[in-house]
Amino acid sequence: MRTHYCGELNKDNINQTVEICGWVNRRRDHGSVIFLDMRDKRGIAQVVINPDNADFSLAETIRNEFVLKITGTVIARGEGLTNPKLSTGEIEIKAQNIEILNTSKPIPFQIDATDTSEEVRLRYRYLDLRGDAMQNRLRLRSQVTRYMREFMDEHDFLDIETPFLTKATPEGARDYLVPSRAHPGEFFTLPQSPQLFKQLLMMSGFERYYQIVKCFRDEDLRADRQPEFTQFDVETSFMSENEIMTMMEKMTRGLFKSVINVDLDDNFPTITYVDAMEKYGLDHPDMRISMQIVSMDKLMQDVDFKVFSGPANDDDSRVAALKVPGGASISRKNIDKYTKYVSIYGAKGLAYIKLNEDGPTSPILKFLSDEMTAKVIEMTGAKTGDIIFFGADKTKIVNEALGNLREQLAKDLDLFDKQWAPIWMVDFPMFGAGDDGSLNAIHHPFTAPSVDTKILEQTATTALSRAYDLVINGSEVGGGSIRIHQVKMQKMVLKLLGISDQEAQDKFGFLLDALEYGCPPHGGMAFGLDRLVMIMTGANSIRDVIAFPKTQTAACLLTNAPGSVPRKLLRELSIQVSLAEKD
Amino acid sequence: MRTHYCGELNKDNINQTVEICGWVNRRRDHGSVIFLDMRDKRGIAQVVINPDNADFSLAETIRNEFVLKITGTVIARGEGLTNPKLSTGEIEIKAQNIEILNTSKPIPFQIDATDTSEEVRLRYRYLDLRGDAMQNRLRLRSQVTRYMREFMDEHDFLDIETPFLTKATPEGARDYLVPSRAHPGEFFTLPQSPQLFKQLLMMSGFERYYQIVKCFRDEDLRADRQPEFTQFDVETSFMSENEIMTMMEKMTRGLFKSVINVDLDDNFPTITYVDAMEKYGLDHPDMRISMQIVSMDKLMQDVDFKVFSGPANDDDSRVAALKVPGGASISRKNIDKYTKYVSIYGAKGLAYIKLNEDGPTSPILKFLSDEMTAKVIEMTGAKTGDIIFFGADKTKIVNEALGNLREQLAKDLDLFDKQWAPIWMVDFPMFGAGDDGSLNAIHHPFTAPSVDTKILEQTATTALSRAYDLVINGSEVGGGSIRIHQVKMQKMVLKLLGISDQEAQDKFGFLLDALEYGCPPHGGMAFGLDRLVMIMTGANSIRDVIAFPKTQTAACLLTNAPGSVPRKLLRELSIQVSLAEKD
Repeated sequence: MRTHYCGELNKDNINQTVEICGWVNRRRDHGSVIFLDMRDKRGIAQVVINPDNADFSLAETIRNEFVLKITGTVIARGEGLTNPKLSTGEIEIKAQNIEILNTSKPIPFQIDATDTSEEVRLRYRYLDLRGDAMQNRLRLRSQVTRYMREFMDEHDFLDIETPFLTKATPEGARDYLVPSRAHPGEFFTLPQSPQLFKQLLMMSGFERYYQIVKCFRDEDLRADRQPEFTQFDVETSFMSENEIMTMMEKMTRGLFKSVINVDLDDNFPTITYVDAMEKYGLDHPDMRISMQIVSMDKLMQDVDFKVFSGPANDDDSRVAALKVPGGASISRKNIDKYTKYVSIYGAKGLAYIKLNEDGPTSPILKFLSDEMTAKVIEMTGAKTGDIIFFGADKTKIVNEALGNLREQLAKDLDLFDKQWAPIWMVDFPMFGAGDDGSLNAIHHPFTAPSVDTKILEQTATTALSRAYDLVINGSEVGGGSIRIHQVKMQKMVLKLLGISDQEAQDKFGFLLDALEYGCPPHGGMAFGLDRLVMIMTGANSIRDVIAFPKTQTAACLLTNAPGSVPRKLLRELSIQVSLAEKD
Repeated sequence: MRTHYCGELNKDNINQTVEICGWVNRRRDHGSVIFLDMRDKRGIAQVVINPDNADFSLAETIRNEFVLKITGTVIARGEGLTNPKLSTGEIEIKAQNIEILNTSKPIPFQIDATDTSEEVRLRYRYLDLRGDAMQNRLRLRSQVTRYMREFMDEHDFLDIETPFLTKATPEGARDYLVPSRAHPGEFFTLPQSPQLFKQLLMMSGFERYYQIVKCFRDEDLRADRQPEFTQFDVETSFMSENEIMTMMEKMTRGLFKSVINVDLDDNFPTITYVDAMEKYGLDHPDMRISMQIVSMDKLMQDVDFKVFSGPANDDDSRVAALKVPGGASISRKNIDKYTKYVSIYGAKGLAYIKLNEDGPTSPILKFLSDEMTAKVIEMTGAKTGDIIFFGADKTKIVNEALGNLREQLAKDLDLFDKQWAPIWMVDFPMFGAGDDGSLNAIHHPFTAPSVDTKILEQTATTALSRAYDLVINGSEVGGGSIRIHQVKMQKMVLKLLGISDQEAQDKFGFLLDALEYGCPPHGGMAFGLDRLVMIMTGANSIRDVIAFPKTQTAACLLTNAPGSVPRKLLRELSIQVSLAEKD
């Protein structure tokens, strides 16, 4: 229907007769001449319609977002009328024929307007997606998956599809259920990840598998989560964690170079879990920020200030300081704001020392000797103009409070020292412990520990796993591990997690069986594609890198899904709605 | 962990020390020497373990499907001991070190055995998948999607993901439902295809979209259907049906050449629906078979044989003949079998005339004059040694009976004239009519008719659609159409389908709205990937081209999905099982 795309016309086309199709991005009447900015997926070109054109009166009916086919001649724009901002800015198309392929009602917001509420954008997603921002993000997303696939193809991985209608596995979040009609009263589960199937593919001798696949979690939605999300999923046999990490790092580096022309570090730094918690308070630290948390436990053990000495003398607690360069200028009001911010994580206050021109000032100076204050300044390396914040509480609270405060302050005060900071996080604990002493899996129950069954049983709470996470700019974009490949170890781990033999058999009997028939050593990784693309595009929300996302209440404003269903359909599925019984 | 793959070793590696990993495909004790056939994803190599090896007693414990790492030296096989069937047949590996990475219980069936029941294969899918047949099919499947993606990338299509948790759309089969926890009493639907979303992407200005995506249909399962299946899905704007068909044909031709080295016809023949029904009885005829159905209506209008003259004089009925070359040798018993076969389609009998050396014989000869019999022979072109079968009944019954009989006979008597026969089916009717005169969509309600709204309203039952199907060897591997892009036409079609304004608004309000905001002319196509790969691999079932398929009762024998779910989880979803209420 077209000879050219609008966005590709230039001086070389002058005097050519062209046919273009697209949308009216903007229509302007200049006295007796009508100008149309015609938009297609490659860009915008200006069309001019003179009053002597037979279709002039038709053109007068044209409004924004009408769909047109225009036949015309490319001509040079008059002097002073060129538009250097447009690739097509040196030419325009003198229309001969105009065909209205479709009309449009007045649109509820300007395409590419930046102040449209997200609710309206999602309601009229088909208009929102016409704008440059969303077009570019989804084009980049397509380039990202293309690069990944080409890399995996080159490295001899097979793209193998795993089932969507499957059985519950314990990834930690709630499952979405799908009632079965053929098996009344029974349910399928939508996968939270293809974890068990990709392991089964290793047991099936494929050795190298990948897939870019939708996964599902019925979570209480946070700002950056979606009920359905996309995973770039990889599994290999006969490779060590270092070999897997090296290959995935190469993929990541190539991806950033190829798609957004960013050179990531040649060797991503490796940080241990213990180190990250001590220095950055989080297991996914943003390493664009050089600020570190400094432990003050030893220093504070004997101070006459219970707020500090208490935690300093408790094994489960911690006293730590965070020096913020230039932070002395933070106002009292903003310190109150940060105090409120750390309270989200359970901190009961936010002590600080400001280093002004005339020396340190702080409400807590009175509790510390001058010598002690000097030591704190020395240990944190604080200088005049800085501020030192303190955390003193249970270790978990201090880490979360100061770890998140560190990243919030970096944003507020622009304390980023580099643009891109990819790291590998390693040496995670195998288990976390609940308040009742029960163990839970830090990654998932199929992650291999770095010790054998005997030692694991004796040292469960301190044992490390063979897991690794890829963190870029403070976001966990991928994670993986070497998996358990021996049935004895798998049963031991399930037992340590408090899963009875019967429950294990019911839920993972097929996996336990399969482990007994020559399961190779294997491991892999999964990337959160939405998160990764969000980081690469600089979008503020994963909803901005998904064509048709759900809202934070897991609804689709465009289609109004979910919706009610005729009772007859539910009867066929042997279920009924039971609102009263809800907890 | 390895220096080489087993399957890649050859004479060039002689004297090299190699490390290989893999499975024991077969273990043989030859007197005091142990031979292991080691298998990995690239193939098989023979390992020899001599009695002087320090690991010899360990090797004695090795059984089939153990997972080993072997370090050894590649040596030439002795004279007369080479195996020309194996790429590695000229060498063997003299083992130095043997490491058992995992053991295996005795396996329930031999890998690559051809007589294993499908039930056992699916139960132990991870063993079944280790065999060459499944490895090759899934490798080919991965190559197919890779080719498709590369083709679409080259043609500037974007890979865009559409939602899985969405709203019911009317594709004809039952939907799978997903209860929403956030919206008690409401349900998502798993998509039967991304149809509406890909149309919305055209309205969003993307112009060229593709996706390889899982779709879901809760159908009564037939031999070649799966509750979840994979679709290669394409949509474009501003392209005519011919342009789309040309592009998709080029893709298909390139795919067959690239992946299985088959040259498909340069121009796929185009057959109209009316023509196909008349000559082949089916709208997806297998054109590897040159046999055609010949209409006898005019000839039989005045015969004194009500079985023929009745249908010949009825507009909704048909008399037709199918000549089968060499069919005179079909036994009485087999004719009974075919009579039973056509009864599946409602045929009440299967009249025939055999042309033996001594002339025509048939139970119906007595009802036909010699002249009439001669005319039948002339019209069908039958020769001595052939058989002519007749169908005389409602047109639908005759077409289905003779159309399917034609293909069954071709299989039984090997009457295929070529290996590959791709065709385009075009000029489908827009609507089918139910017994009560109500209309239903032959494709789906978003397919554009080839006439305008006014004419459509007047000629609904005879109007043609702008749909096209790609049929290869009698299988519909793909189908598509130009879509309705104007709201007036869409409302007209929904009205003709008996969908009330209210129902239309409830179900597709978002689509009707979107059509009013500058929807471009658009169309597309979808390929059934499973079916296509099945044809390309020559597999007998789509279950043989899917890693983890469901059975015909929509269950997974490996994981035992679906399964029961704790009542607590159902309560959180505001549903309960209600077996008693089932119809």
